[in-house]
Amino acid sequence: MQYPNGKKSSALKKINHTSQTVYSNRGMSLEDDINDTNQYYLTHNIAIIHKKPTPVQIVHVDYPKRSAAVIKEAYFKQASTTDYNGLYKGKHIDFEAKETKNKHSFPLNNIHQHQIDHMKQVVKHGGICFLLIRFSISQETFLFPAEKLFTYWEQQYNGGRKSIRYETVKKLGYIIPIRYQAKVDYVAVIDKYYIKNGGTTNGR
Amino acid sequence: MQYPNGKKSSALKKINHTSQTVYSNRGMSLEDDINDTNQYYLTHNIAIIHKKPTPVQIVHVDYPKRSAAVIKEAYFKQASTTDYNGLYKGKHIDFEAKETKNKHSFPLNNIHQHQIDHMKQVVKHGGICFLLIRFSISQETFLFPAEKLFTYWEQQYNGGRKSIRYETVKKLGYIIPIRYQAKVDYVAVIDKYYIKNGGTTNGR
Repeated sequence: MQYPNGKKSSALKKINHTSQTVYSNRGMSLEDDINDTNQYYLTHNIAIIHKKPTPVQIVHVDYPKRSAAVIKEAYFKQASTTDYNGLYKGKHIDFEAKETKNKHSFPLNNIHQHQIDHMKQVVKHGGICFLLIRFSISQETFLFPAEKLFTYWEQQYNGGRKSIRYETVKKLGYIIPIRYQAKVDYVAVIDKYYIKNGGTTNGR
Repeated sequence: MQYPNGKKSSALKKINHTSQTVYSNRGMSLEDDINDTNQYYLTHNIAIIHKKPTPVQIVHVDYPKRSAAVIKEAYFKQASTTDYNGLYKGKHIDFEAKETKNKHSFPLNNIHQHQIDHMKQVVKHGGICFLLIRFSISQETFLFPAEKLFTYWEQQYNGGRKSIRYETVKKLGYIIPIRYQAKVDYVAVIDKYYIKNGGTTNGR
């Protein structure tokens, strides 16, 4: 099976969005898709979700005359939170996005302990928190609620699996519809499973 | 008047926090104080507020053998949002913090149009949004609601002042109590003016 990587929006524009969605998005990274979706949400006043900038430890900066400051030495730092957060229908939204090339399971080493800690805090304080998991081979993306993730996270330290089976992700998570403009339309899933009857029910 | 800059926690620990608060915090930057406060909120499970990393456009990275990747060329980018956001009592919190050395007014050129745009979106979607303004000479810090800020922001383009008078900030904003561990205890103000009766009233 071959994937036409590197083809981005130009390729996508030719796609008829009523065709089978599983294949229509091939070659786009999950991050690209989420960024496009967030931009669509923002432009259409649906939600305000931003990706946090990559945290960088800046060591040395040059300030040349008459031109912009140049960072000459810096290092990547580990993020202390998840990558995405924002606001939807008055609710705080917080999530991390992960893609796997595995077909049968999602490896937990994609996630770090400090991200789990952060997600627990968000849940505790009443935010809507989840993981977006993409299986890149099938191009399926799932919303996997943080509350479910915690169980599997703990289990790996008690002799359990170091991954979550695809079948489990499918059963406990929610498949995310791919739309033409909102390529990972996670807000549709939030509406359905978190915000019921226009209310503020958190969780399922 | 001289400020003992550079003295941080060691100097602060000697201060009796029951003494006149206006002078007790001298020399600390607003950003330091907010970071300490957020850390306190996090540790004590009060709120989850993080400062967003500085956005950087990375151009060139070296990957030396057996050591960490080094960013060799990067540039500062303009942030597309405010600096701080998070979650408190189930509500989305979003704010920007600005310090001024002016005694009689807060200059609006401290803020950018895209931050105003972002703040409007947050308010529209039901978040609690404000500006923390510190007058560094008096060492007073105010929570100034975004809704009030918009009025003054627009006025400057209709022949109005390019700043907000200190008296106005004092009248329409809320002074933030300085506590020993929460140096800019803005959550106390949120409790009082935004979240009334433990409910979810947004705004005043």
